[in-house]
Amino acid sequence: MHETPRADRTPPGFVGGTLDRVDHVRTNPALLAEAFADSSARRLVLDGLDPVEADGHLLLEPINRQALLADHVLLGVDPEQRPIFVRLAGDLGGNLGPTPRSRGIAGLIPAEEVALYGTARSLVHWHARHRFCAVCGAATQPVKAGWSRRCDACAAEHFPRTDPVVIMLAQHHGRVLLGRQHGWPQGRYSALAGFVEPGETIEEAVARETFEEAGVRVRAVRYVMSQPWPFPSSLMIACLAEAEDDALRLDPTEIEAAFWCDADGVRAALAGDPDAPFLAPPPMAVAWHLLDHWLGEVVTADASA
Amino acid sequence: MHETPRADRTPPGFVGGTLDRVDHVRTNPALLAEAFADSSARRLVLDGLDPVEADGHLLLEPINRQALLADHVLLGVDPEQRPIFVRLAGDLGGNLGPTPRSRGIAGLIPAEEVALYGTARSLVHWHARHRFCAVCGAATQPVKAGWSRRCDACAAEHFPRTDPVVIMLAQHHGRVLLGRQHGWPQGRYSALAGFVEPGETIEEAVARETFEEAGVRVRAVRYVMSQPWPFPSSLMIACLAEAEDDALRLDPTEIEAAFWCDADGVRAALAGDPDAPFLAPPPMAVAWHLLDHWLGEVVTADASA
Ligand SMILES: [Zn+2]
Ligand SMILES: [Zn+2]
Repeated sequence: MHETPRADRTPPGFVGGTLDRVDHVRTNPALLAEAFADSSARRLVLDGLDPVEADGHLLLEPINRQALLADHVLLGVDPEQRPIFVRLAGDLGGNLGPTPRSRGIAGLIPAEEVALYGTARSLVHWHARHRFCAVCGAATQPVKAGWSRRCDACAAEHFPRTDPVVIMLAQHHGRVLLGRQHGWPQGRYSALAGFVEPGETIEEAVARETFEEAGVRVRAVRYVMSQPWPFPSSLMIACLAEAEDDALRLDPTEIEAAFWCDADGVRAALAGDPDAPFLAPPPMAVAWHLLDHWLGEVVTADASA
Repeated sequence: MHETPRADRTPPGFVGGTLDRVDHVRTNPALLAEAFADSSARRLVLDGLDPVEADGHLLLEPINRQALLADHVLLGVDPEQRPIFVRLAGDLGGNLGPTPRSRGIAGLIPAEEVALYGTARSLVHWHARHRFCAVCGAATQPVKAGWSRRCDACAAEHFPRTDPVVIMLAQHHGRVLLGRQHGWPQGRYSALAGFVEPGETIEEAVARETFEEAGVRVRAVRYVMSQPWPFPSSLMIACLAEAEDDALRLDPTEIEAAFWCDADGVRAALAGDPDAPFLAPPPMAVAWHLLDHWLGEVVTADASA
């Protein structure tokens, strides 16, 4: 059976950004003003939170002289040494979730531009939802090139939020546990997932979530890979774990259905086979790559057995 | 040389909590009221954000009949099936950072109680600093047993924050890169560290921070372990990486000094040898365990060479 060698595969979506984030410029007003005034500086164009694609790339525009630095986030400097900004949105209204355009962008532009869009989207979303100080309720202002907001009333400084999420495959006798959430496309199953809570490790969060959602106890959690997920700003932490047994007890508020799938079923789903036992998540999702990684381990184990 | 076998060592501080977080109780008002009224229910006593120790344990007290459920966070159910709560603080004033008492608690009580304290501290701190809605500035109320806050003005729901932080050792020809920040105790060096930003993977954050702080390019980043760090609420993600060369270019705003340390130096420092080339971080810090893990790899590599 022909397969693309694993090392040649593209990474999950939003991974592989090539901008230098130039932290030293963010905190230096003179360097920041210089970057903003640079004739090579460009502004990433967004439509609300959606990307705008033109000729296979994200649309970037020159920054006009009337633009205000305070309305912009410095995303970094690109490999051509151009400072890249994004403008903070006015009112985004209620359209804050993923759309077909934002989910579909990964197929249309190079991977490093998908990563740039993800970073920009997370930052613009964060500013739109954090205009006020959580400590005292006063209005806050963007500072440090948009990488922080400052409250003049109480002096609190607020930083962009990144929420760690564990996403995991429990394995048991050559099969992995897949679940589906309410409202997913017909036939879609994926790895279980949940937010890491204060006071727990990655490994503890994997064990808690797998037990909460499916009633399955796991041990020997292993980290596999990570991915930033900009809906709105998660850090996906993908893991494998060993299930102690295969009895399921689902939490119906979290999981609509779940089943144990063998390697043939996973292989067929990743290949897009219409007769596969489930519809796989898209390759932009880290879950696709976690399933692919697990298949690779199974093949290696079979070959050495 | 005699060493404690690695598997027998205690984990870093704040790891190994044994409470069942009973997510299904948090969101079920009847079950929650029942847990709060349970005669076996206990409240963790804090002094501001500091722990209170008595006879080698955290101080827990019965919950009196006048107490208001809305002022409490349900931390979970302990192995004796007792619901454990913590009361939300009134005004904490400016004393929000670590103190000698909070940093020293790991040596005085069992590991699972250190983890309980860490969770409680992060939650109480989060509530104290998030009384207002970041979206609209209105006052918010705790809901879901203290695991969320709700804004009645704009209907936004806010969840406790957990900030992922990478902490890493770059290695080069049998030595690891150690740095010290301004204001640390004399002689103290540790792994470099920094917050994961929106739009980057764990591996990308390790590479960015190591280059920003020390001018060192790394590749082949490997995850080692994680730890919750409740000052106020970080998820420490400990990694090893391969440095491309050993030339240093320090960012003086972040790092006061840095050097490459060999295995003998690291071993002496972890053993508390006064002649060691640096003062190691305490064993409650994940950095101590990352250094210990690296030593283990070096010993294994030497033995198989
Ligand atoms: Zn404020
Ligand atoms: Zn609000």
